[in-house]
Amino acid sequence: MTLLLSNEEIDSMLDVSMVLDAVEKSQRAMASAEALSSPRVDTLAPTVTGEASATYSLKSMSGLWPEAGVAALRINSDVLVWPTVAGNVRRDRLPSSTGRWTGMLILYSMATGEPLMISPDGYISRLRVGATNGLAARYLARTDARVMALLGTGWQAGGQLMAHCAVRPIETVKVFSPNPANREKFCRELQSRVKAKLIDVDSAQAAVEDADIVVTATNSMEPVHRKEWLRPGVHYSAVKVQEMDQPFLDAVDRVFMFSKNPLTTRPQTVKLDSVITPEADGGWWQNRQGQSWDRLQELPNLFIGKAQGRENDRQTTAFVNNVGQGLQFCAVAKRVYDEACARKLGRELPTEWFTQDVHP
Amino acid sequence: MTLLLSNEEIDSMLDVSMVLDAVEKSQRAMASAEALSSPRVDTLAPTVTGEASATYSLKSMSGLWPEAGVAALRINSDVLVWPTVAGNVRRDRLPSSTGRWTGMLILYSMATGEPLMISPDGYISRLRVGATNGLAARYLARTDARVMALLGTGWQAGGQLMAHCAVRPIETVKVFSPNPANREKFCRELQSRVKAKLIDVDSAQAAVEDADIVVTATNSMEPVHRKEWLRPGVHYSAVKVQEMDQPFLDAVDRVFMFSKNPLTTRPQTVKLDSVITPEADGGWWQNRQGQSWDRLQELPNLFIGKAQGRENDRQTTAFVNNVGQGLQFCAVAKRVYDEACARKLGRELPTEWFTQDVHP
Repeated sequence: MTLLLSNEEIDSMLDVSMVLDAVEKSQRAMASAEALSSPRVDTLAPTVTGEASATYSLKSMSGLWPEAGVAALRINSDVLVWPTVAGNVRRDRLPSSTGRWTGMLILYSMATGEPLMISPDGYISRLRVGATNGLAARYLARTDARVMALLGTGWQAGGQLMAHCAVRPIETVKVFSPNPANREKFCRELQSRVKAKLIDVDSAQAAVEDADIVVTATNSMEPVHRKEWLRPGVHYSAVKVQEMDQPFLDAVDRVFMFSKNPLTTRPQTVKLDSVITPEADGGWWQNRQGQSWDRLQELPNLFIGKAQGRENDRQTTAFVNNVGQGLQFCAVAKRVYDEACARKLGRELPTEWFTQDVHP
Repeated sequence: MTLLLSNEEIDSMLDVSMVLDAVEKSQRAMASAEALSSPRVDTLAPTVTGEASATYSLKSMSGLWPEAGVAALRINSDVLVWPTVAGNVRRDRLPSSTGRWTGMLILYSMATGEPLMISPDGYISRLRVGATNGLAARYLARTDARVMALLGTGWQAGGQLMAHCAVRPIETVKVFSPNPANREKFCRELQSRVKAKLIDVDSAQAAVEDADIVVTATNSMEPVHRKEWLRPGVHYSAVKVQEMDQPFLDAVDRVFMFSKNPLTTRPQTVKLDSVITPEADGGWWQNRQGQSWDRLQELPNLFIGKAQGRENDRQTTAFVNNVGQGLQFCAVAKRVYDEACARKLGRELPTEWFTQDVHP
């Protein structure tokens, strides 16, 4: 049988500590050349949705984890637009499937090839991003970090909140995003998920001023972290490369990325000429040489003792979550699958629907 | 609703002429930069199946066809071994899912992003390969070709048979493969699919000696077509690059490949160091320069008049089907989907199973 799960079922059993554990174990395997992630492939072409022009994007990435006996493929089929909101260009996916988005995950058995589980990717994705930044904090932030600043109140911000509160004794989280209604809603909806007290503040400055950990989880394509915010002992964390610029990173004592491997970090993008994406090449992370690049270290090497992290309570540290990896989905999906089997959750579909008695 | 189809349902409605038409139209679009195929991604790692060591492979490729409003992703999750059979190394996929193989296709709407159809890939794959070689014959073989030689009697051979008989007035097909039982079985099972008479012959030489079209559809990793077989006016066709070597191709008057684009023809392969595959780099098709390479032309350019094909009935022509493309699956799946909707075939699954109300 192939298990079909919903986001609600996943949410009911997936604790952030399970995700932290799954991501850490699988990334240790990857750092030891015992697990792998594929390059991500993005294909883009012009489309028409309703009566409006947009860009269609089909994206996939996969990961294999032999020790756990599983592989996974994550697929996103999106209708994209790049509107300018408050002077900033942002990337939006339209909920064009009658108000919904199309993103799924297939977990395969490496022993039989067959699909073990099919699920949406949203909840798993949020927590694997959160857990990755959370693991950076587990290895890099001061152990007595009690105040967290969170800039951004979208979907990813929730994952960041849960993961950071799970790895450090956070008592207060100061939450900022430009729209007061979004901040208020975020604090109201997420308060029950963590023990720390969520406080809605009205400027980024107010959020960061006495924080021990500063986390950004925004849609911005402009840098968010500022050099003038740097204070001794603080850990800075970003969900994507655009949020931190080179001058900021140069001023931080120890800087980590998720991966520097061009294979996994440079997506294979194929697009028709008629597609113009504002998120073209460029930015400091494209310049893979020089002193600034050399001092960047890879997070998984910290897990296996191949990189040096924080040495004292005065150093500043930073983590840039620069890439999504198929292996993250593979590891978290395996945990979800085991848990769902144990709890007898999900809908059983005949595996024969997805297999065949011939091979091409 | 998302339509779930079986191979039997696909077989009941998919005629080779529909596939020829779909592949030709979509490849015209591709040659005109109005459709695209992604790079294929192969990920390999060691696995254990039952108690035996093998290699697990997760492979995916995608295609987008804006004019038809659809995109498709084809996924194969295989357990591979490379046994030596009769002195030749061959690549086998094990039917490790209780006697079955895992290969599927998802067709997406470019207007909404949602999955329109899920199906196995076997029947569609056979006919898209067959149709691609068939189109080469439609454009390159003599119009009076009446005798066909078919070397190979496996799954792909059936597709080659149907496609070539659809594009030329073939009256006789001489079938050879090393195992007499396989030849006999092939002729018995496939005879009803074509008007031409299938004749089981006991040597490759006997098959090719008076053929107007010579087609190979083998598992061989060694060249099959021979320079000494070349006769004026004959069209030679291969389902993969290994079947034709450079000396053979150099002696043919006009040679076509499916694609010379490194983006689609060089798979992105990621594998753990512990995986050793006999099908490593090498072979003439890896040498992308020099006179031999320059004289190779791309088949889709023939469809749009950008390449010169046969000029007279004395020339020899050859086609090497060097790559599988996501766009082939996209185009054929769209035809299957339209036909299934018209005939009300297939099982309707709720699209909400594969979509979500959040986006990561």
